[in-house]
Amino acid sequence: MFDPIDVIKDLVRNPSVSTDPAFAAGMDATREVLTALFEGIGLEVEGVPTARHPVVLARRTGPEHWPHLIIYGHYDVQPPDPLELWESPAFEPTLRGSRLYGRGVADNKGPMMVHITAVAQLLEEKPDLPLRLTFLIEGEEEIGSPSLPAVLEEKRDSLKGDFILLSDTLNPSDDQVAITTGLRGIISCDVTVTGPRGDLHSGMYGGAVLNPLQALTTLCASLHLPDGRVNVPGFYDAVVEPAPWEEEEVAKLEVSDAEFCEATGIPAPWTANGRTPMEAIRYEPTLEFNGIGGGYQGEGDKTIIPSSAFVKISCRLVANQEPHDIRNKLFRTLLARCPHAVKLTIKEGHHGPTYSVIPPGRENTPPDQNPHLARAFSACEDAVTAVFGRPPLYLREGGSIPIIGVMKATLGMDCLMLGMGTGENKLHAPNESFDLNLFHKGVRVSREILLRVATG
Amino acid sequence: MFDPIDVIKDLVRNPSVSTDPAFAAGMDATREVLTALFEGIGLEVEGVPTARHPVVLARRTGPEHWPHLIIYGHYDVQPPDPLELWESPAFEPTLRGSRLYGRGVADNKGPMMVHITAVAQLLEEKPDLPLRLTFLIEGEEEIGSPSLPAVLEEKRDSLKGDFILLSDTLNPSDDQVAITTGLRGIISCDVTVTGPRGDLHSGMYGGAVLNPLQALTTLCASLHLPDGRVNVPGFYDAVVEPAPWEEEEVAKLEVSDAEFCEATGIPAPWTANGRTPMEAIRYEPTLEFNGIGGGYQGEGDKTIIPSSAFVKISCRLVANQEPHDIRNKLFRTLLARCPHAVKLTIKEGHHGPTYSVIPPGRENTPPDQNPHLARAFSACEDAVTAVFGRPPLYLREGGSIPIIGVMKATLGMDCLMLGMGTGENKLHAPNESFDLNLFHKGVRVSREILLRVATG
Repeated sequence: MFDPIDVIKDLVRNPSVSTDPAFAAGMDATREVLTALFEGIGLEVEGVPTARHPVVLARRTGPEHWPHLIIYGHYDVQPPDPLELWESPAFEPTLRGSRLYGRGVADNKGPMMVHITAVAQLLEEKPDLPLRLTFLIEGEEEIGSPSLPAVLEEKRDSLKGDFILLSDTLNPSDDQVAITTGLRGIISCDVTVTGPRGDLHSGMYGGAVLNPLQALTTLCASLHLPDGRVNVPGFYDAVVEPAPWEEEEVAKLEVSDAEFCEATGIPAPWTANGRTPMEAIRYEPTLEFNGIGGGYQGEGDKTIIPSSAFVKISCRLVANQEPHDIRNKLFRTLLARCPHAVKLTIKEGHHGPTYSVIPPGRENTPPDQNPHLARAFSACEDAVTAVFGRPPLYLREGGSIPIIGVMKATLGMDCLMLGMGTGENKLHAPNESFDLNLFHKGVRVSREILLRVATG
Repeated sequence: MFDPIDVIKDLVRNPSVSTDPAFAAGMDATREVLTALFEGIGLEVEGVPTARHPVVLARRTGPEHWPHLIIYGHYDVQPPDPLELWESPAFEPTLRGSRLYGRGVADNKGPMMVHITAVAQLLEEKPDLPLRLTFLIEGEEEIGSPSLPAVLEEKRDSLKGDFILLSDTLNPSDDQVAITTGLRGIISCDVTVTGPRGDLHSGMYGGAVLNPLQALTTLCASLHLPDGRVNVPGFYDAVVEPAPWEEEEVAKLEVSDAEFCEATGIPAPWTANGRTPMEAIRYEPTLEFNGIGGGYQGEGDKTIIPSSAFVKISCRLVANQEPHDIRNKLFRTLLARCPHAVKLTIKEGHHGPTYSVIPPGRENTPPDQNPHLARAFSACEDAVTAVFGRPPLYLREGGSIPIIGVMKATLGMDCLMLGMGTGENKLHAPNESFDLNLFHKGVRVSREILLRVATG
């Protein structure tokens, strides 16, 4: 069998940044590594073309009465910048201690390899394992999975299965696994404010021209209240409170403010509506500025009134906020608040719905007691308890995997989201890493889940 | 004699950006061109070393009873970016119509050449002209002239003279010359807000961490009131109103709001305290954001909470605002308003005092009627009226030439600031240009002033 760590390194070496066309070759190369890998363990591989990055489907077929498990992953990664903050090159996998460093090693190449490795081991040991499998590996997760819905529609008959297994979420600590029961939704946009035709001398014109940076920062500042809440009319209208069992699970995390500050390097937490940090990340919607720019960026001074400035905005949404509704409210607010002495343009980005594994009307029942979820979740709970020595927590996550909700809507299946990593993984940031000790434990858990699903 | 246009082109070809050490060779080459030029017309050249960029002194000595005129200029230029907005390369002088394009062609290489050319012509025609001359050409004007005060102190005996002639200001139109009677002062600083140790995933942490872009934009927005005034306590305390004759001169400009918008490309003017644009530029102090940056700058989305963000701030000051006082008030305000959930650092930039040619206590008397100014200013008024067909206007300018105030304080001399260009010159912006028709008229005016000063 292949050495899984070598394969992870090989995947990281190929820079598969889906958002930036400059990385097209890295996307292609990453798909080629995966294709060879799946074919090597006897799966049938299909590359499904899309408008941007193909989806990789890898199947183990079998009799209809065999259970059918879908395993989701994504082969694309976030941009690596700011490059200067990486301690080793972003696309040169580097081992320090038990952690492997590199862009995409934790999001999602390493965790994806946990399940590929478990499947490869099991099929080598038990070539007759009564289990149908489909790996569904997309290349557009980091840009909001624009093509996957159409692929799911096209392939829905062959994707009918029992449930979807994936590891694209995190755990609260090395020895405490979390099963994710819900995800925040997301919308994003780019906002540009334009004033003068070109940069103006701040002495010759200053005092008579609204500086686009002044207009933009004032507009940005208007989007939050001093207490931290988002200041967009109607933003909180659809928000529903978490169930009591969810509050109890979050309370088990026992993360102090001091620990949260130590982990992130911030002087103090900053939450709205009286939440603790662990609650706020899961239950509060947000409006974040992901990037801002305009005017002189170099060393020293340049005394100009810049021609324009931009800000990149994204909102994380919680149940039952609806992306299109929030998008409309945000855009209307931006347009209404922008002064007439500058021009405003908004470019819409990606969006994804909120998700909950708990069926509507049963919000007060945890997933291991929710009848239609119990089989998969109890298999996972037993496996995690055996390998990690303690049961998993059932938690919502603050992140967004837009396609989870789409898969549930299109394929009618729920997702078992098995955490694989901690905050130390530094997802989306410089020095992203993945713990190889966790990798090996993860393979054992994944094997147990696959075996229980195959054999009942 | 040399071809002055060829010399201007040669000067522009050498990129002398004083703020950026990457342009050191361009600074050296520009000084070499000037040195050869001055030596070619028989002046004694001295390069006075400083901590950064040497000052060029070029002297024509003579008997003590000859008048002594100082001519000031600067050989450094602003950074050329954004490079992609230049229609021809920034450092490749390009003639389109009667205008020569290139970084520094108007600020200050072309106007400086007006006076060098006038001197060269006069000395060729009248080798016995009874006039002592000193060209004082510095290389740090665009970074606030940090070294010039010490050079003026060191050379003060040889710089004793009648007055200082310079062209580093603009005119309201091609046929209306302005003599600048006052300048705004300036202070600048770089402000950085830092939150988490590194960029954080906006899903995993959003809601519990104060986004540094949110903190920075809120801080920026707090620095202005909705009516456009600067919102720093005590900012306006020392501001004095302009004299009635100044208001009358500005009114002669007759620039409509529509013309101002047409010239700048803005949808509407934006002034504080009920000023017209022409008044606001001259009589109102400002606080401008010259550049802002933080987080993801590339194409597409990157859903992070950025680790830090910066803004470059500069204030233009009017009489009697004092730079250190305003600096203290601004810094105190920034520190007081920054939330504790992020860290704030301020790096001080350059500063320069406000300037007025009118002596204290005589603010209500125009310069041509102010006894100690009348000789130089009436020579200039006559020359301008002869060449342009109409007398000059006496106006304050919105820009800052910090060294003007320092020269008055150190050398005890006033400055005759002869406008050389219009807003079309696009100082500090892409596609900076200089009108060669104006150049030739300027040489005629400069010759007349030199002759009148030499011969009484």
